Amino acid sequence: MKTETTIQGLSASLNPARAARKIIGFVPTMGNLHEGHLNLVREARKLCDVVVVSIFVNPIQFGPNEDFDSYPRTLEQDQHLLAEVGCDIVFAPTVEQMYGNKPRLTNIAVSDITNDLCGLQRPGHFDGVAVVVTKLFNIVQPNFAFFGQKDFQQLAVIRQFVRDLNIPLEVIGVPITRAEDGLALSSRNGYLSAENRAIAPTIYKTLQTAEAELLAGTALAEVLANMNTTLTAAGFVVDYIEARTPELQKIEQFDQDVVLFVAAKLGATRLIDNLQVKYPAA
Amino acid sequence: MKTETTIQGLSASLNPARAARKIIGFVPTMGNLHEGHLNLVREARKLCDVVVVSIFVNPIQFGPNEDFDSYPRTLEQDQHLLAEVGCDIVFAPTVEQMYGNKPRLTNIAVSDITNDLCGLQRPGHFDGVAVVVTKLFNIVQPNFAFFGQKDFQQLAVIRQFVRDLNIPLEVIGVPITRAEDGLALSSRNGYLSAENRAIAPTIYKTLQTAEAELLAGTALAEVLANMNTTLTAAGFVVDYIEARTPELQKIEQFDQDVVLFVAAKLGATRLIDNLQVKYPAA
Repeated sequence: MKTETTIQGLSASLNPARAARKIIGFVPTMGNLHEGHLNLVREARKLCDVVVVSIFVNPIQFGPNEDFDSYPRTLEQDQHLLAEVGCDIVFAPTVEQMYGNKPRLTNIAVSDITNDLCGLQRPGHFDGVAVVVTKLFNIVQPNFAFFGQKDFQQLAVIRQFVRDLNIPLEVIGVPITRAEDGLALSSRNGYLSAENRAIAPTIYKTLQTAEAELLAGTALAEVLANMNTTLTAAGFVVDYIEARTPELQKIEQFDQDVVLFVAAKLGATRLIDNLQVKYPAA
Repeated sequence: MKTETTIQGLSASLNPARAARKIIGFVPTMGNLHEGHLNLVREARKLCDVVVVSIFVNPIQFGPNEDFDSYPRTLEQDQHLLAEVGCDIVFAPTVEQMYGNKPRLTNIAVSDITNDLCGLQRPGHFDGVAVVVTKLFNIVQPNFAFFGQKDFQQLAVIRQFVRDLNIPLEVIGVPITRAEDGLALSSRNGYLSAENRAIAPTIYKTLQTAEAELLAGTALAEVLANMNTTLTAAGFVVDYIEARTPELQKIEQFDQDVVLFVAAKLGATRLIDNLQVKYPAA
């Protein structure tokens, strides 16, 4: 496994694969890898000849009061894990390599589906994601790109701009990887105190209960209210609980496939999770 | 020469060239081709193995009161001209082929350098250009893309977002093609009455006079004022006369290379032109 820190180095590493028309798979990450990321790499390994993983903590997707500076950077450990799951090339550029010295004037905005859910509390966040992912796509030029369904809104935003801009690759969404107790894996779980770590799986349990209620015929609004009650009682400060179509359109009743979204704070740590509930076939 | 009207058809036509690692040159146009466009194709022909020309009147770069509906569409004549100058593939998609049936949510904005000059009178115009050019780049995936220097601001905007987004191609700016009397060729020249067509070359003469004045030591502000006087006296309604660096930064004195920009209406027809004046080496 090679590690490249420059765009030029990465291109040189990938050129033989491109010339041989090999299938290139790409997994963009911010590092501090856990089993969720590794499952993305395993999925890429199945479908592709060459697997590239980027590790880049992207400054422009963090708000001024967010955790850019303190975001965990664990490159050596990440390299070790990636080598084990069959990554071919790690791309770990500096901020300067990605953004250069001249000011960036270009922004990519995906309207409507970035203004609510996680976008409401994080203005500009998804613009920053769209810009960096577009840059990485143009640098790596993969055939397939792999993203976790945990960041479901991010995945929907990426699918949208890939379609709108005709970016020549296929986006693959990979199901959420969970700890044994159900907590969706996240780099931010490491911020949780032991006590809060024990409470955190309540989010997934609440989503499972909601699914059962929906399938039993409880009205959607009541199900969402129950989720709020449960999470608040457990000590969460709920940021949002919402039901959307898989394309993130608002939905009033469980009359089609629905995705249930939760974002909630436990202490200072903001956790997100989601669960897709299939509408039962008639 | 082939004509493709679908993205799929174009990809099928280009795949053998891609597999053989041929150099692909791309000239995006809105059709109604004149010698200016044909010179872009000739330039592409020199540098590339395969030359693709797109003909697409892009609705999203026209304002509500602009000439989208009346913009001249002359595909057969264009095909004939392109075959003569060695174009390999014409890509002439429909609006539906380019934008599909689902709403486009993604926008690309290049700040600062799109808000003035032609952008001031045409809000959203350069966003529409950035989106369609990015889409075409992703569809054609050329090694080189050719644009005329007549639309100097457009060229600067394209260079900017190509750099900011790491789009993997080289942008080539091709000098303005002029009629014998100096008028910069433009599809919109066809809108001019015979009388106004005779007046139109005054723009270029004014630019040449300005260059001579600058090189003779006249202050930049005075030179710009003289241009305004001359054009107004000739019957133009001046939209703007400006001096900028080649990167479109404002400039107060002729102490470096400068580009002089003119946009002016003659009757109902808006004409633009520009001239780069090199700062004399010491």
